[in-house]
Amino acid sequence: MKKKLTLKQIARELDVSVSTVSKALRDSAEISEDTRQKIKAFAKLYNYKPNNIALSLKNRKTKTIGVIIPEIVHHFFTTVISGIEQVANERGYHVIICMSNNSFDKEVINMELLANGSTDGFIISVAKETQQKQDYHHLNEVVNQGMPLVMFDRVIDEINCDKVIIDDTIGAKKAVQKLIDLGSKNIGIITTVDYVSVGKLRTEGYYKALRENNIEVNEDLILRVEDFDRSEEEIKAFLSQRKVDGLFAVNEHFAIYAIKAVQEQGLKVPEDVSVIGFTDGELSKQFMPSLTTVSQHGAEMGAQAARLLIRKLENTEMEEGPHQTIIIETGLVERNSTKH
Amino acid sequence: MKKKLTLKQIARELDVSVSTVSKALRDSAEISEDTRQKIKAFAKLYNYKPNNIALSLKNRKTKTIGVIIPEIVHHFFTTVISGIEQVANERGYHVIICMSNNSFDKEVINMELLANGSTDGFIISVAKETQQKQDYHHLNEVVNQGMPLVMFDRVIDEINCDKVIIDDTIGAKKAVQKLIDLGSKNIGIITTVDYVSVGKLRTEGYYKALRENNIEVNEDLILRVEDFDRSEEEIKAFLSQRKVDGLFAVNEHFAIYAIKAVQEQGLKVPEDVSVIGFTDGELSKQFMPSLTTVSQHGAEMGAQAARLLIRKLENTEMEEGPHQTIIIETGLVERNSTKH
Repeated sequence: MKKKLTLKQIARELDVSVSTVSKALRDSAEISEDTRQKIKAFAKLYNYKPNNIALSLKNRKTKTIGVIIPEIVHHFFTTVISGIEQVANERGYHVIICMSNNSFDKEVINMELLANGSTDGFIISVAKETQQKQDYHHLNEVVNQGMPLVMFDRVIDEINCDKVIIDDTIGAKKAVQKLIDLGSKNIGIITTVDYVSVGKLRTEGYYKALRENNIEVNEDLILRVEDFDRSEEEIKAFLSQRKVDGLFAVNEHFAIYAIKAVQEQGLKVPEDVSVIGFTDGELSKQFMPSLTTVSQHGAEMGAQAARLLIRKLENTEMEEGPHQTIIIETGLVERNSTKH
Repeated sequence: MKKKLTLKQIARELDVSVSTVSKALRDSAEISEDTRQKIKAFAKLYNYKPNNIALSLKNRKTKTIGVIIPEIVHHFFTTVISGIEQVANERGYHVIICMSNNSFDKEVINMELLANGSTDGFIISVAKETQQKQDYHHLNEVVNQGMPLVMFDRVIDEINCDKVIIDDTIGAKKAVQKLIDLGSKNIGIITTVDYVSVGKLRTEGYYKALRENNIEVNEDLILRVEDFDRSEEEIKAFLSQRKVDGLFAVNEHFAIYAIKAVQEQGLKVPEDVSVIGFTDGELSKQFMPSLTTVSQHGAEMGAQAARLLIRKLENTEMEEGPHQTIIIETGLVERNSTKH
């Protein structure tokens, strides 16, 4: 039996990136003629067949939805999946989940794997690395061949497909407005580096709220966490040198670390510092003080994504129609980390 | 194009259970001759093909591992998956995840789906309902046809396959021994109903620790939570009528609810009541007081399961060999919910 090669193996053998192999096999002009020929010859020699989306479309009947998420040890993504599962099951669809682990290569490989006849369509939230690289050829490929694709949360504006997002900017603005209404004068934000789209949008909400209230933005009160594994230390160091009375954190963990850092300084939450987070996980609910937070409605997001995808799958006339973007409204869940 | 029927659709059409259809198509003697013929005729009429494990074995080359877990909004299972992913990726395997949602039917359907040529082998933790029903025909089917299967955490003794478990009983015993060593006299346990195998094993550990220390078991101090969605209320009601100075909870949530219930009574953790949980999730780490807990080493469990499966996949001679059960040792992580 001849061994079947994978994209990754070809890339390793020829010492090029997975993306280069993937593009070369699709005759992308981005790859030099020379490299393209070399890769195609190698793939042919080893009988490599790129994913045959057209074929699987013709026989579209797997009744299976492929879901690709960036990480799994993450409450938000698991709640989105539970929402997808519920709608899919009601409608007689199976759900298969793959993880990109925030790696561009893994995302490309997973899409290749699932497009290969196992699924009728995709629901995807892209990897951080894909956002950084801005290499979307694998997503364009799927769309161009007419395979239904729905993006959620971390979406790419340039891709023509249905999308489900939350109003990250408005949600963040609401949170910061709440801090202002509570009387906070020095409001800090703990956010991520800007290439993570949701972090960027939430930071915009912070700017907007301040501007609309004629509060000057003090860049010194903005922490952009670079290394997630060291976020607790970064937050502690940041807060030890700033005097704030309000804090908005773009996720639940940053918010909890912020509360702990504030308390270690002998200050009280919410009496001295009000803290608002983003995402409504178990930690927000159970922590004491429980966390006031912008709720993302993950399950609702998943349910809407599944509905959009199944509609496209079951109504072939719609395939060419205009794409929708559904914006799920965020809510502010008031708990005990802000004054009442 | 003729529509492809699924197991579930056949079951619905003929008004029988998914399990009955699945067994009838495999000529199980458990199903009456009459029903078997009816189901087989119907399946034939609609061109239904049961999963062709033998076929996929012959061409075993998907380099894909199918993982079936009971729930996804659950820290432990997501850490197991991260461990599976890591080893699988290092070895050039893809991972596809399906969720049974603790439903027996969904578990059967998912195995059918993935066995159908998409995967080389399975890693599975069975659904609560499967444990209740004690219907293991789908697992036996896979094993009998020689498709490698590794069970983890919620395993079934009767199935001959590799297994990865933790020493639930020993882990629980360690926790209760710790409470005894700390001087607790009235030690309660918050556990699950007995058909959930890990809950049962952990409860055994509680009994053992008490017996070995010549402490009489007081059944009145044992709460078996029946309805997970109402566990917080059940725990509060239970503790309001008992006087305990030590508590062992078989999971992290029960432990957190117990701490809150104790505090609401005006008592202090750990001064008045020491509390130990099981599982080492984010909640245990971040909660205040942080939770002393029996760590399950989910990622290690996943890594071992992946290693066992890949070994079977790559060494055909081993296929018939004896099966292994790897027991991952638990550790007691001491934090602030027990006295120091």
